[in-house]
Order: sequence, then C-alpha cells, then structure tokens
Amino acid sequence: MRGFYIGRFQPYHNGHHRMVEEIADEVDELVLGIGSAGDSHSPRNPFTAGERIMMVTKSVEAFDVTTYAVPIEDLERNSVWVSHVQSMSPAFDVAYSNNPLVIQLFKEAGVEVRQSPMFNRDVLEGTELRDRMIHDEDWRNLVPDPVVDVIEEIGGIERLQRVSQTDANGGRDNVSPS
Amino acid sequence: MRGFYIGRFQPYHNGHHRMVEEIADEVDELVLGIGSAGDSHSPRNPFTAGERIMMVTKSVEAFDVTTYAVPIEDLERNSVWVSHVQSMSPAFDVAYSNNPLVIQLFKEAGVEVRQSPMFNRDVLEGTELRDRMIHDEDWRNLVPDPVVDVIEEIGGIERLQRVSQTDANGGRDNVSPS
Amino acid sequence: MRGFYIGRFQPYHNGHHRMVEEIADEVDELVLGIGSAGDSHSPRNPFTAGERIMMVTKSVEAFDVTTYAVPIEDLERNSVWVSHVQSMSPAFDVAYSNNPLVIQLFKEAGVEVRQSPMFNRDVLEGTELRDRMIHDEDWRNLVPDPVVDVIEEIGGIERLQRVSQTDANGGRDNVSPS
Amino acid sequence: MRGFYIGRFQPYHNGHHRMVEEIADEVDELVLGIGSAGDSHSPRNPFTAGERIMMVTKSVEAFDVTTYAVPIEDLERNSVWVSHVQSMSPAFDVAYSNNPLVIQLFKEAGVEVRQSPMFNRDVLEGTELRDRMIHDEDWRNLVPDPVVDVIEEIGGIERLQRVSQTDANGGRDNVSPS
Amino acid sequence: MRGFYIGRFQPYHNGHHRMVEEIADEVDELVLGIGSAGDSHSPRNPFTAGERIMMVTKSVEAFDVTTYAVPIEDLERNSVWVSHVQSMSPAFDVAYSNNPLVIQLFKEAGVEVRQSPMFNRDVLEGTELRDRMIHDEDWRNLVPDPVVDVIEEIGGIERLQRVSQTDANGGRDNVSPS
Amino acid sequence: MRGFYIGRFQPYHNGHHRMVEEIADEVDELVLGIGSAGDSHSPRNPFTAGERIMMVTKSVEAFDVTTYAVPIEDLERNSVWVSHVQSMSPAFDVAYSNNPLVIQLFKEAGVEVRQSPMFNRDVLEGTELRDRMIHDEDWRNLVPDPVVDVIEEIGGIERLQRVSQTDANGGRDNVSPS
Repeated sequence: MRGFYIGRFQPYHNGHHRMVEEIADEVDELVLGIGSAGDSHSPRNPFTAGERIMMVTKSVEAFDVTTYAVPIEDLERNSVWVSHVQSMSPAFDVAYSNNPLVIQLFKEAGVEVRQSPMFNRDVLEGTELRDRMIHDEDWRNLVPDPVVDVIEEIGGIERLQRVSQTDANGGRDNVSPS
Repeated sequence: MRGFYIGRFQPYHNGHHRMVEEIADEVDELVLGIGSAGDSHSPRNPFTAGERIMMVTKSVEAFDVTTYAVPIEDLERNSVWVSHVQSMSPAFDVAYSNNPLVIQLFKEAGVEVRQSPMFNRDVLEGTELRDRMIHDEDWRNLVPDPVVDVIEEIGGIERLQRVSQTDANGGRDNVSPS
Repeated sequence: MRGFYIGRFQPYHNGHHRMVEEIADEVDELVLGIGSAGDSHSPRNPFTAGERIMMVTKSVEAFDVTTYAVPIEDLERNSVWVSHVQSMSPAFDVAYSNNPLVIQLFKEAGVEVRQSPMFNRDVLEGTELRDRMIHDEDWRNLVPDPVVDVIEEIGGIERLQRVSQTDANGGRDNVSPS
Repeated sequence: MRGFYIGRFQPYHNGHHRMVEEIADEVDELVLGIGSAGDSHSPRNPFTAGERIMMVTKSVEAFDVTTYAVPIEDLERNSVWVSHVQSMSPAFDVAYSNNPLVIQLFKEAGVEVRQSPMFNRDVLEGTELRDRMIHDEDWRNLVPDPVVDVIEEIGGIERLQRVSQTDANGGRDNVSPS
Repeated sequence: MRGFYIGRFQPYHNGHHRMVEEIADEVDELVLGIGSAGDSHSPRNPFTAGERIMMVTKSVEAFDVTTYAVPIEDLERNSVWVSHVQSMSPAFDVAYSNNPLVIQLFKEAGVEVRQSPMFNRDVLEGTELRDRMIHDEDWRNLVPDPVVDVIEEIGGIERLQRVSQTDANGGRDNVSPS
Repeated sequence: MRGFYIGRFQPYHNGHHRMVEEIADEVDELVLGIGSAGDSHSPRNPFTAGERIMMVTKSVEAFDVTTYAVPIEDLERNSVWVSHVQSMSPAFDVAYSNNPLVIQLFKEAGVEVRQSPMFNRDVLEGTELRDRMIHDEDWRNLVPDPVVDVIEEIGGIERLQRVSQTDANGGRDNVSPS
C-alpha cells in the first residue's frame, strides 16, 4: 500500500511531520508531493523545490517508512492535474488531502482520498511560521531540526524578509518590474 | 454573413439564449466561442469545455441557424488574442461583445464589433446563477432544459459546491496545494 | 452511446467521410476531434483549426447523426493527453483510432478503443492528397464538396504550395527565420 | 562598464528619464530592460513592447551614451529569471533596481545591484501618469516629447481608457470573456 | 560534498548502476537527476518520471550513500537550463556528465564538471536495451532486479512495443493524430 | 517609412550587412528582428539573443539610419506569428524576407513583403560560416569587425565546437540528457 500526501512545504514543519508520522502507520510507502514546485522567492513560496526536497528528505529519515519526495509543478488546468500527478509520482493507492479542490479532482478520477482534521491546522501553522520568520520571532521550535539547517545554510530568513517588503513586487508572485 | 459571439458560458443560461436568438436574426451562421476553455473546477469556471460544448450545442438546436461551438483557450497575451480567435474559428464578419477589452482588441484589428445592453445583464445572471447553485437555491428555471440535463449528469452542483468552500484553494483558480 | 474519432483532417477527405459514415451506424452521437489544432501553414498541416471545423461540419451534415467538431491541441506530454481530450470533448464511451500511441494511451486510461483497417488507408490518402495539391494535380474528387469550397475560398492551394517550397523553413513546422 | 536598468516603462516618463541621465554618468553603455514585455492592453500595462521600445529609443537619443532597449518577458519562475535576463541582454556589470525581489534575485546570482531613492518616486509617477491619462487630465508634461508622439500616434489614451472601464475584464489582465 | 548525475534513465540499467557506484566513492550525497521528466510513452522515452523514480530509488538502496531522485523537465531554453536544474535539485558541488551540451552549460555557469569514459558506454546500452525490449530479446540481465519488477508491473514491454510500431505517430514523440 | 528585416543572425555576417545597407536606402528607419531569440548553445543557433543584439547594434552603427534590434522568440503557432511580431516591434510598413512561410504569413495579414535574391545567399553564408568556425577555418573576414569582438569575448568558437560534437545531444537543439 502506497500513499500520496501533497503539500507546498513552505517550509516543512512540525504539523506536516506529525501528519507524516500518522500516515506512516497506514501505508507501506509514502510519496510526499512537493506542490507548486516551480514557485520560489515569494512571500507565500519562499523556498525552491530543491531546498524543500532536502528539508523533507532529511526530516523523514526519522521514520521507518520508504518515502519519495517528488516535486509537482502547478498546471494551469485543473482537468489534467490528476494525470500530471500520477505521471510524476510512483503509483499510489490513496491520497491524503483536506484541500477541497484536490479532493474533488481525485474523486472524479476515481482515486480514494482520506481527510484528517490535522490538515487544517497545518495550513495555519505554515502561515504563522512564515510570519514569524518575517518578523524575526522564534520559529526554530516549529520545524524539525534538519529544516533549521537548510534554511540557515541558504540564508532563507533574509530572502523571505526581503521579498516580503511592502509593495515588493506589486503584489505579484513572480518578477514584474516596477 | 457569419457572426461570432464569445462568452464563458459557465453555464450557458437563458440570458445567453436570448442573445443568441437575437443575433440569429442578423446572421446566416453563428460561431459561439467558448472562452476560458482550459479552465474548469473553480468557483468562477466550474465546467469543462467539453461540458459547455454539450450545453451550448443541445440548447441552440432550437434555433434555425447553423451554429459552431468552438472552445477558445485564454492566452497570456492580449496582443495576439484576435489572431488566436481567428485561427480557431470559422471566418466571421462581425463580433458581438460588451467586454471593453474584447471590443478594443477587435477594433484595433479592424473587426466590426456590435454591442448590446443585453450583455451586461448576462454577466450578472451568470454570477447569480452560480451563487444559487452553491446555496442550493432554485437555478433550473434560469437555464435551457438541456443544460439542466448536462449539469445533473456530471454532478455539477456537488462539484461547484466543493470547489467553492471557504479557502478551498487559497483564492486561486488552479490547484495550489495547502 | 457517444463515439470519439480523432484525426488531423488536413484536409477532411473521402476516406474520413467513409469512416464517419461507418461509425455513425454504431453510435448515437459522434465527436470529431480535430487534432494538432494549433498547427497550420505547414506542409503537413496547412489548414487552421477554424478552417477544418468548417470542412468537417459542412461535410457531416449529410449524415443522420449528431456530431461535434472539437479542436484538440497537441500537448507536449503524452501522460496527460487522455485527460486533456476528455476535458475538451463531450463525454464519450468509445474511441476510434488506428494510431498505436493513441490506442496505448486510451487503453492505459481504461477507455475502449476500436480499430479499423480503413484508418491506415486514410493516412495514405491524406499524404497523397496534399501531394496532389502541391503539384496542381486533380484533388477535388477526393474530398466532399464543402471541402472544395472552403479550400478555394481561403486560397488554400496557393498557401500549401508556398509553404512547401524547398527549404521553405529549414524543415521546421513553425517560423524559424533564415 | 555596462549597466542594466529594468522597468516596465508603461509609459517611459520623466522620472525614468532622470534616472537614465544619472546612470549614464556611471556607465559606458546602458541596457534598458523593458519588463513585462508580453503584456499590453491592460490598465497596468497599456502599451506593447514595440511601442515602448520606440518611446525609450527616441527619448534616450538625447543622452550621450550607447543604449540598448531590450524587451524582457515575464517568466513564471523567479528562480531562472536572472539567467533569462542575462541571455536576452548584452552582458552587464551592474544592475539598477529598487524592487526588493529583483535585488534579491540578482544578489543570489552574484550580480552587483545599485539602488537609488529616485526609483520609488518613479513607481508613483507611473501610476499617477496612467490615472491622469484615464481621467483626461494633463499628462503631456510628465513625459519626454517623443513619448507624447508615440502615444498619440497609436491612440493610446483611448485604448487605456477603454480597457480601464469598470469591470472591463473581471479584474484580470488578459482576455477572459464575460 | 554533494554530486549531481543526470540521465534519462529510460530505463535505469547496469551501466548507470556502475556509474553511481563509482560516483558514490567520491561524494557524501548524490542527486540523480531524472532528465526529460515530462516525456513518456515514446520509443526513446517509454517510462514516466514516476516509474523512473521508483526504478532509481529501489536500485540505489543497495549503495551506502544518501541519494535524491529528482525529476528534471526539459526546457526549450538552453540558456536557463542550469538555473532550472539548480532550483529543482538540492545544492551540489560537482556535476557528472559526458553530454557536451550539458558540460558547456555547466562550465559557462561556473559549475565543476567531471567526465568519465563510462558514460558513452551507458548511452549505447540504453539504446541496445530498448531494442531488445522491442524485439522480445533478453533484457532482464542488463538492469538491476528492482527495475525488472517495475517494468513488469506496469506492462512496460507491451507499451514500448506498441508505441514503437512503424509509423506509430509520424516519427513524433508526442501525440499527433494521423 | 519603417522597414522590418528578420533573420536569426547566427551570427550577423557580411551578407546580412550588405542587405541592411541596401534596405537602408529604401527606408527611414529599420527594425532588425532577431529571430529564434530564445535559442542558443546549439549547432544551428550558437549565440544568445543578447549576444546577437550586440553584434547587430555595433555593426549597423556604420550606417546612417535609425535602427532597432528587437529579439523575436519563436512561437509554436504560425497563425499568430504576425501579431506576435507586430506587438514586439515598432510599427513597420514593409517586411523584407525570402522565407516562403514568412512571406505567406505576412501576405495573409495584409503586410507588404519585399524579396531579394541576396537573401538566399545569406542563408548559405550562415551555414558556411558556422562550418568554418567548427573546423577552425578562417571566418573573421566574413563578418563585420564588431562581430569578431563579440564572438571572441564570449568564447563563441569553443562553445560552438563543443555543442557540435558528434551525437552531442541526440540531434536535439535543447538539453535532453543521454
């Protein structure tokens, strides 16, 4: 039994970590889909796919389950998103998500979806976490240790703070020069 | 004389239907451009291009005019949009629209554009209609009968309701996992 | 029962026409997918999607079956091609094709595919037909009458002849200036 | 010493002009990157890249420095934006910008960035200028003379006014038909 | 010290396996870039990225080195390819390749590249291997055991044989209907 | 009167230079469209758009005509190519080309095209020139002096030689790892 759990992991934090621990009990192998893989250097998506692969891979080494960290780029078409995921990921039997759009798309494609109240909390924790990073408040105890290492090595706090400056980019995620 | 009338038709409703009836008097043939053809499964664009082709084709059979239902995908470049439309559609002599951007682009390209006060009402009706669907209020009497059939066959109400859940997808139209 | 028959229809010819006639006996409704919809003005794909929609729609009026002519743009990803087709087309129960790649993709997606020896002949006829057009040999008796009208109205023979000139474009399908 | 100064130049105005004058003292040659080059016909980006190339080229003829006006299309990936700019532009030694995202990306790529308080003023002037154009207030004295010529020749004021009409396009920059 | 070794791995075979074993002696961690990640279902690229991730991950478990299997999609721009790779991959100190274009691009970007005579042999083995699969000759002893399992589970031989049929798709890699 | 002359300029050579000199007599201003602008680092397209902008701009300074060097990226759609060119270029009255596809597209769009026997020779000279560069034969006397400077400064000969190595990249223009 292989499961698929998708998140943006911006960054991977203790909420995700607890979810993975939970899911690890239900599956033999787990694919961690790193969503919005092409996005980086924005307030909502500060870290690159490569940086997030490292965060995830180093953190889940703690668990006794075979994992795959697979970057999944956003598409502009919801109608082919499931096929896209299925082609980029090792085959999976069940998907874990609380995102209503993701649930709807998997269901229409006949893929079993499992939800958990923990997911919603995770979303909140991600926003809270990036806010703390921006305002130099404590964030290190909200993420697994390997995530601290990655963020510090790449100068992630300075990056996030700069791209979050007021009117940094006209409210857009990608470069649109003033 | 062939006319071109573009709309998103999310879904095709009685307001569109009256417009088509009106235009049918002025032209020999009518192309119905199904705009934002690549979008689906979002609160603003719940239905796929294929589903909308069925709604439109089945509904306009009632009129005595040759029609073509042609999906038109959005481009990221306004400057080539008219050429794009002209390559995807049978050649047309006049375009019908009240969208100021569409009017400007056709005019710069030397295409005749006809406007009608009915258009604005149509826009309102589309939003009102999707709101009713979301809140399980009566919507069936606002669309032609074949549209009811298509929406019920595909489970369209459930789909629209799910993808419209609060914070379903961070306010984005396409999948961006939480 | 709705069938799906995909071809590039460059142009729609008597071989296609016989196939449609055959399929029309097996289905209630028929979707004619106009493949490589974004391609035009090349030796292999001289006509735009809009021009091909007209050829197909006018020609199949002769048959007593509801038809939909739906442009299908090529994707760069085989793995999502079936989902792409399914989102652009009214829902269908069976696909008709002799293209081995198309057959494989539909089969992996669980869609029934029907083959016919007639298909191969159609491919040959398409190439033969364009060759005749290029060399000003007789081609009119190989296509339904409405197709002759469309091609003559748009100056299709002159277009095909020019874009087929030796080394017209370094052997590429799209503009790559010399 | 070659410098790179990027802006959207919608349109090129006196604030940009003073910046270029300033930079011209520090460099031997100057590349003027015309950002969001693919955007046009929207309230924020009314003019095409070609129109902006003319505005810039005609205006900077006044200065005694070799200049290159180079259109730079937006990418959806911040992580490759610097490479993209470097491939489209003559090689440069220093970049001029006050956009925090642009600064961050250049710095991570090891490119020297120089900032100036004048930049912020420029941004304000661009918005103010387009507002004046929309409301038929005086704008001609805020731009170099050649810019007035270009805008009048292309009917730029009428274009901007039309695409800025309330609800012109559902708040979107590119065509999304109502 | 982290190394980056890129290949298409269509499929991952003993030649790749020996290379990884060799590289594993020189580095602490190894990123295996799965090139042309978006391609599948063609004679040159039969397997999806997800299938190749499984082949690679299961096979390299045998070695005592931390590995990351990272899909890398092709871009249409050589000039931004290195940035693209660097954003999708954990940071690396040295790249392993014998592909002259890859070497040139990494060198221009200042990345150290190491070559090995073994690479050329690998290329030949990949072509030979797919030929054997097509002609039902023995191929199982040319790949690690987990690769046999993956290929058999997905019906990979049948897939490759079908998409390799003469004139399967007009010599094109992606669907272009006949 | 403004003219538009498009070429790939890989590199800009004496044949192009003579053409520009000729055209300069017929027009007040000249736009030099740098085609296939996104391509580089391949045997057919070794130089980036930025490098070609420098070659062209420095070389045409010799002539007494206002020129614009404008990069034009290839599109995958011939049907919108003219609109694309018109949006990226200052407005022009006449186009110069001998490429049959370019001629056909401009003619269908109602743009005047002028041909010259000199064009064909230019194409031959481009291929001949790159061959000489690859084989270390004399090429410097076939290009204007500023082009020699650019090519030597960027290590262009070494780059072209490496990417032209036998089987460098499976015959493909962009990176497709072996």
